[in-house]
Amino acid sequence: MAKPGGNIYIVTAPSGAGKTTLVAALLAAEPGVKLSVSYTTRAPREGEVDGVHYHFVDRDAFLARLERGEFLEHAEVYGCYYGTSSLWIRERLAEGDDILLEIDWQGAQQVREAFPEAISIFILPPSLDELEARLRGRATDSDEVIERRLAVVRSEIDHVGNFEYVLVNDDIEVAKQDLISIIRAERLRATKQLTRHAALIASMKTAP
Amino acid sequence: MAKPGGNIYIVTAPSGAGKTTLVAALLAAEPGVKLSVSYTTRAPREGEVDGVHYHFVDRDAFLARLERGEFLEHAEVYGCYYGTSSLWIRERLAEGDDILLEIDWQGAQQVREAFPEAISIFILPPSLDELEARLRGRATDSDEVIERRLAVVRSEIDHVGNFEYVLVNDDIEVAKQDLISIIRAERLRATKQLTRHAALIASMKTAP
Repeated sequence: MAKPGGNIYIVTAPSGAGKTTLVAALLAAEPGVKLSVSYTTRAPREGEVDGVHYHFVDRDAFLARLERGEFLEHAEVYGCYYGTSSLWIRERLAEGDDILLEIDWQGAQQVREAFPEAISIFILPPSLDELEARLRGRATDSDEVIERRLAVVRSEIDHVGNFEYVLVNDDIEVAKQDLISIIRAERLRATKQLTRHAALIASMKTAP
Repeated sequence: MAKPGGNIYIVTAPSGAGKTTLVAALLAAEPGVKLSVSYTTRAPREGEVDGVHYHFVDRDAFLARLERGEFLEHAEVYGCYYGTSSLWIRERLAEGDDILLEIDWQGAQQVREAFPEAISIFILPPSLDELEARLRGRATDSDEVIERRLAVVRSEIDHVGNFEYVLVNDDIEVAKQDLISIIRAERLRATKQLTRHAALIASMKTAP
């Protein structure tokens, strides 16, 4: 069985839409999908582990990597830098692994330029009220941060039309299945399957 | 919540690939998908019910409908006619229902011409040997019919590249989930979701 190149999946969502929970469920259900660990200059939140949740680096180290062209995409959000390692992604794709990027709409745009075949998914909360409630329920962020996050929703949502898929995270179990379905379906595209099952198809073409 | 128009799914497979079992599992899991019941001039097999498995009609009745332009697609296979009612499909789609057509590659081509947005899925058996074994295990067909079916596989497989998705029915449970995933994922396309959730998106654009 020949191995086609991996897919790149981009998952984007306003803070509080439930992206982290959904992505964790997906990674547990589909071990073939590898999560890209971003570099960031922001301080770790409680429980966050270096190399697992992010590669935590200082500003100088980040800018040095940026200058060396090591980032596929990067963004400055609320005064902190975030970036995705280009090298790691190209290695994984060549191995046939699927890659998942948790990035914002600006990062999504940069990744699409480098990989037009990337599959992008935007996750929406069920309502604006629910989004605010979820952000306030999260004890880690200050009121100021929450207000800033809510204000940024308006500009984010303007870009939803650039995504291939849109999920509404109302019922978490349904949303999990939706996300898993998109990943499975994209692997079943003829372009991938004709490579993966080339020998089977060739054998059927020469059927007696 | 606004209702976008339904999707048309085409499922095509060589006889013995397991199409009927997979489609039955899909319809049970996703009641929003309506199976198009074809018209045919072939004799009912044991257990087949008129109006459920097919609309069984005689040759004259079929040709009269064909002349009136009632068929979206039709084909002559092994000397029998098969056709899909155009009227029923357009009604269902306008209601927002998803439609599933079980047709051959020639029918798929005709449907694509009328509905370029149709989503087509080709189901492959795990091997040619397995396909033959399944056909011989089915007591309903004569040796001559089986040989004819096997001979036709070669020409069918030449058209697999025109389908959007390709499934290999090796493990039936995996294949069921694959088929369901494609149907779910296609409903989550931004083009559909932006209509379905227009009010939610509008409310988020005007966030404070």
